Amino acid sequence: MAYNLLKGKRGIIFGALDENSIAWKTALSVHAEGGTFVLTNAPIALRMGQLKELGEQTGSEIIPADATSEEDLKNLVTKSMEILGGKIDFVLHSIGMSVNVRKGRSYMDENYDFTAKGWDISALSFHKVMQTLYKNDAMSEWGSIVALTYMAAQRSFPDYNDMADNKAYLESVARSFGYFFGKDKKVRVNTISQSPTATTAGQGIKGFNGFINFADQMAPLGNATAQDCADYTITLFSDLTRKVTMQNLFHDGGFSNTGVSREVMDKFE
Amino acid sequence: MAYNLLKGKRGIIFGALDENSIAWKTALSVHAEGGTFVLTNAPIALRMGQLKELGEQTGSEIIPADATSEEDLKNLVTKSMEILGGKIDFVLHSIGMSVNVRKGRSYMDENYDFTAKGWDISALSFHKVMQTLYKNDAMSEWGSIVALTYMAAQRSFPDYNDMADNKAYLESVARSFGYFFGKDKKVRVNTISQSPTATTAGQGIKGFNGFINFADQMAPLGNATAQDCADYTITLFSDLTRKVTMQNLFHDGGFSNTGVSREVMDKFE
Amino acid sequence: MAYNLLKGKRGIIFGALDENSIAWKTALSVHAEGGTFVLTNAPIALRMGQLKELGEQTGSEIIPADATSEEDLKNLVTKSMEILGGKIDFVLHSIGMSVNVRKGRSYMDENYDFTAKGWDISALSFHKVMQTLYKNDAMSEWGSIVALTYMAAQRSFPDYNDMADNKAYLESVARSFGYFFGKDKKVRVNTISQSPTATTAGQGIKGFNGFINFADQMAPLGNATAQDCADYTITLFSDLTRKVTMQNLFHDGGFSNTGVSREVMDKFE
Amino acid sequence: MAYNLLKGKRGIIFGALDENSIAWKTALSVHAEGGTFVLTNAPIALRMGQLKELGEQTGSEIIPADATSEEDLKNLVTKSMEILGGKIDFVLHSIGMSVNVRKGRSYMDENYDFTAKGWDISALSFHKVMQTLYKNDAMSEWGSIVALTYMAAQRSFPDYNDMADNKAYLESVARSFGYFFGKDKKVRVNTISQSPTATTAGQGIKGFNGFINFADQMAPLGNATAQDCADYTITLFSDLTRKVTMQNLFHDGGFSNTGVSREVMDKFE
Repeated sequence: MAYNLLKGKRGIIFGALDENSIAWKTALSVHAEGGTFVLTNAPIALRMGQLKELGEQTGSEIIPADATSEEDLKNLVTKSMEILGGKIDFVLHSIGMSVNVRKGRSYMDENYDFTAKGWDISALSFHKVMQTLYKNDAMSEWGSIVALTYMAAQRSFPDYNDMADNKAYLESVARSFGYFFGKDKKVRVNTISQSPTATTAGQGIKGFNGFINFADQMAPLGNATAQDCADYTITLFSDLTRKVTMQNLFHDGGFSNTGVSREVMDKFE
Repeated sequence: MAYNLLKGKRGIIFGALDENSIAWKTALSVHAEGGTFVLTNAPIALRMGQLKELGEQTGSEIIPADATSEEDLKNLVTKSMEILGGKIDFVLHSIGMSVNVRKGRSYMDENYDFTAKGWDISALSFHKVMQTLYKNDAMSEWGSIVALTYMAAQRSFPDYNDMADNKAYLESVARSFGYFFGKDKKVRVNTISQSPTATTAGQGIKGFNGFINFADQMAPLGNATAQDCADYTITLFSDLTRKVTMQNLFHDGGFSNTGVSREVMDKFE
Repeated sequence: MAYNLLKGKRGIIFGALDENSIAWKTALSVHAEGGTFVLTNAPIALRMGQLKELGEQTGSEIIPADATSEEDLKNLVTKSMEILGGKIDFVLHSIGMSVNVRKGRSYMDENYDFTAKGWDISALSFHKVMQTLYKNDAMSEWGSIVALTYMAAQRSFPDYNDMADNKAYLESVARSFGYFFGKDKKVRVNTISQSPTATTAGQGIKGFNGFINFADQMAPLGNATAQDCADYTITLFSDLTRKVTMQNLFHDGGFSNTGVSREVMDKFE
Repeated sequence: MAYNLLKGKRGIIFGALDENSIAWKTALSVHAEGGTFVLTNAPIALRMGQLKELGEQTGSEIIPADATSEEDLKNLVTKSMEILGGKIDFVLHSIGMSVNVRKGRSYMDENYDFTAKGWDISALSFHKVMQTLYKNDAMSEWGSIVALTYMAAQRSFPDYNDMADNKAYLESVARSFGYFFGKDKKVRVNTISQSPTATTAGQGIKGFNGFINFADQMAPLGNATAQDCADYTITLFSDLTRKVTMQNLFHDGGFSNTGVSREVMDKFE
């Protein structure tokens, strides 16, 4: 099922760790649709992950970059244009990590050094990526930038901890930078607010399986999978969505607008 | 606990049926806060209800009015100004009824005559009330108009049926008329989106008790009661909220911004 | 620029009037993407419009239907399945008309017969279309239903009159029916909230050109055109967006999330 | 016009700088309503401001505290309970500062040390305040915590720079902490999204006067003033709003739900 939707388009994909990653599936789909790209991840994630394999499958080069480092990002953007032979048409930001969650700190007992670190990685990195692209005039006209987010930015999910606040910041960055990128360069910036997804990264969150189950019973179409998300991202990178910008797009089988489902109600009667 | 917040203010209160009604509790609270008002309800509701008793308790006259009848509304507004001795400072619209729900028709099997009737009573009546007030120049400057609504206007609740769509229309009327009432007369218009409340009217909805229970376990502060709603309405009628307008105000113990609570999650692990 | 995104898919397109219509452009794009469909409009619109020409260009049959008539809709759905040779994969609802606007009645001076007529045509018709599809089990699994709407459903635009309230109702119907269509038939339902568009229908609204100009100077990417909307609709009909449902999707060059643009600010300094 | 709405209530008010400050007006209003409180601000702001005068007018002690310092906050909370003679009933957080704005850095040319500093002061400080209150079990049951914010958290305002993202983070903190504070302590947490206000702090923002003018011509009731905001805050501290929590409450004369006003349109025709 390939349509050549991204034929001739060049991009950068952040955050593929292993074959469960949304970014991994997106890379495969982009490749199938005719796009070319550079893969990137933090040096430490590269050691743990299997990105080399994905690079081989898709004919892509890998450039390590710490997304909190302006220097690394400048190197990434410059090299990517050289490798791909021109300006960038699409970018996927799929990066997030809460040190407080990793270290088992509750939301009412945050360590603020951990908070700042997690904010830098999960939220500010999106600004840094875009500022680097903007300053280097690296985006093509009508290019498309997408970041992945989660609905905890709008509503409280007790186990999501400070990632909720990071995602709210990230979504705001999409709107704020989207204004300038739109006016100045005709580039669009959006976030996809994805169903809870059983990625390797997601596993670390307490109560995650119960939550996936709850969300699946709420959502009229069930949870969106990583592959579904890859498909949807393709449409946002394509030329068919040029006037969609500064939006947070729920991709969740309808969860976000379901107050309660019959299945959930049944447990309370 | 009375503060004289509404001393000297005159109003009209729609929709008190019996002592479980939010409008009933609001009337008592307004009275305690020094406001005077006319009570009104549809002729049929007056026969079934105990409004006379409330009128005596609060020293209020009762004027029957079908809120879908422009003629009845004109009579109500004109008489109310005579009785109260001046223009109107506050209005409470607490009216809603779905004929499809009453007749047991599901949302996928609506009878459209029922739908139109329910829309007229539950949603358009709010426009009719405001148009009557506007045309008769019946509102004081800095007056306050409030209608009660429910979050089904934003998210799907399977048993709420066509009332969801009626509430969405009602909330839109608040914004649309709020613009003109604000610009032309300095009058504010808002809706309160209240927790599910065990009123006599609410009882009719299938699965209502299960739903109240679910909402109560989701909301960090528990469901807001009818008395809580009366209290909140007082603040919106007072002079302390003069610049709040065209808003839909969630009054629900936090339900609306809770993605899931620990208590609900516990049933899925 | 065709991708075969809709190859083998069957649909019904409501509301093409002439070549300025969004529905007209969508029909052409769907045809280019390999989809087949039936065109429909109200008998009176068919007399005024040039739909026959579009039918010939796209090899489509035309079935007249008053979208407020359950009988007409049943005939349309049944015949469409016969003509197209199977269940329906996509539906576009692009219907709206305010009698109050046409007759020059202001929002504070509505004629309620006009209001009811406009609501039936512009808002309830979407429910009637879906109820007919649902009862006749006419939608394929993973089918997609889209209606066009406008941001006046969320914010006040003084000249938009009662269409604002109709659009709020329409968007609620998308969520309400989307829940049941999702759970029971795996069908998704969304609305596209489109930039003001210079269609023949739009011309009737007072101050429309000034408003298009304002919106264009606000939106970072400028207003979305009718052709842009056709492109976007294609993605929502395709298999790449299967888990997007019950959403109201802003397609407006960023207008909806722009508080103010520099260009607009310049007029106030 | 005092109602004794806060008789017997104890609180902490952050961020009064001079008589133009919203926090200053709020302190005066709280005092008039019978509440007692401690005033606090950063040591540097205390030097520049006239807080001593406000302390004398309201019979309040002043405790300097850097709201980014956990140690200062612990001292503030502990001392406040001693001085006031019991747990805290209300807290106002009115703190915000963008170093990037001060230093004239545009949003596409952020200095990330400045960004981190501004985020800590403007957004994370709200978490730090609440974590300190929570850990020291310093809030009374049914206490109320309010932070001031601005609509740039939802929509782009080009001159608002990284404060937009900080406010989005702040509003998320209100929801995230509101969940736990509600469930565990029956404390409510809300943000007020206030009209642009001519405070001394606001003056620093480029194009601020033009923007105040634009907002005033958009809002059907005109901009809300600092005194209006003080009034509104009183209602949120009172016992009449106990079930309002985790909300972002627009207090802006209707600006937030106005797509365009006639006055603004007139400039585009």
